[in-house]
Amino acid sequence: MRPFEEEFKLLNDTLQEMGALVARSVHRSVYALVEKNEDYIHQVIRDESRVDQMEIQIDDLAASLIVREQPMARDMRLVVVAIKIDTDLERMGDLAVEIVERSLSLMRQPPLPQPIDFTEIANLVESMVLRCLDAFVRRDAQIARDVVTSDDGVDACRKAILQQLIHIMEQDPAAIPRALDYLVIARSLERIADHATNIAEDVIFLAQGVDVRHRALEVA
Amino acid sequence: MRPFEEEFKLLNDTLQEMGALVARSVHRSVYALVEKNEDYIHQVIRDESRVDQMEIQIDDLAASLIVREQPMARDMRLVVVAIKIDTDLERMGDLAVEIVERSLSLMRQPPLPQPIDFTEIANLVESMVLRCLDAFVRRDAQIARDVVTSDDGVDACRKAILQQLIHIMEQDPAAIPRALDYLVIARSLERIADHATNIAEDVIFLAQGVDVRHRALEVA
Repeated sequence: MRPFEEEFKLLNDTLQEMGALVARSVHRSVYALVEKNEDYIHQVIRDESRVDQMEIQIDDLAASLIVREQPMARDMRLVVVAIKIDTDLERMGDLAVEIVERSLSLMRQPPLPQPIDFTEIANLVESMVLRCLDAFVRRDAQIARDVVTSDDGVDACRKAILQQLIHIMEQDPAAIPRALDYLVIARSLERIADHATNIAEDVIFLAQGVDVRHRALEVA
Repeated sequence: MRPFEEEFKLLNDTLQEMGALVARSVHRSVYALVEKNEDYIHQVIRDESRVDQMEIQIDDLAASLIVREQPMARDMRLVVVAIKIDTDLERMGDLAVEIVERSLSLMRQPPLPQPIDFTEIANLVESMVLRCLDAFVRRDAQIARDVVTSDDGVDACRKAILQQLIHIMEQDPAAIPRALDYLVIARSLERIADHATNIAEDVIFLAQGVDVRHRALEVA
């Protein structure tokens, strides 16, 4: 292994560890409400400070790697993307906390007249978080493209949940504040998926030297 | 000026130009609805692709600056923060587009039974966007702290708007879908303010060598 590759492995490993932690928080944030599990809520809040520390740790690893190894242009781009990825992961951690705050409030109120099922959207989002990191570590554009495609599934789930919630609110105005909490949970999950998509687009850019971040993506 | 400073000036100027463009889009996204001005909507959508290009341009400037100048640790940190800032600015541009999409839909529907005033929150957010960039360019922690403090004002505005909208929805269930569009606009503005706060926290970190990004901020 070249010295750069050796140093970079630690950055990769730390990013993957951060990604696994965030994926677990996303899972717990939703299942806290599904299973009425308050332990999950406290775990998500506790793990957020670990996620925050890891962002700083990865920035520092990236900066010192650059200073020590003085990588050439292509490797440099890898490090720039690592810095962007830790920023996305940190925001996902914040969003998981937003979800548990709403879940906690909802657990203490009567249920909605019709239950809303979050398990499908949550499983989809959790898997996107894990796969986008996997794509980065393997520099695998195909996995990254699959993540980008999954985002449409998340959008469809979120829209279906929105329609259910509008119906509930129209039928039962007293349920509006609770329904809005559910809506925030759905939007937060969608935003986590958007961050995973950002990461996947960065990986496609890396793998192919093509910037798809701001173009309509043609899935191969 | 040291060579690093000279090279870095171009990065600074481009970031400020990107910030000014984003602040203008934020302004136009809200005033499109306030003034029923469809031109603003098209300008925001058109400027988003310019914002996207500028993110890539700044990443490239940062990477080539590092490769050419091989900055030492402190200057290195400046460049890492520049990469984080362009990511935040690009997301703000996306959020301005989300706002105009809702505004366009709302302009084609009857007004709400009671009007919602977005001008205060919009002016506050626009000013935060400009000031956080100014703080970065001057490396001025005091301006950055003022930006962080302003975020509370935005939260308060957003909560007041939420209460007005809940009241409208409870009184008039037919207005629920429109009210939810207004709610998305308010939340998007709050998220733009969050991004400005992220940038301000990065600046405080730079200026003081203290990482306040993930600590409760004691305002001096």
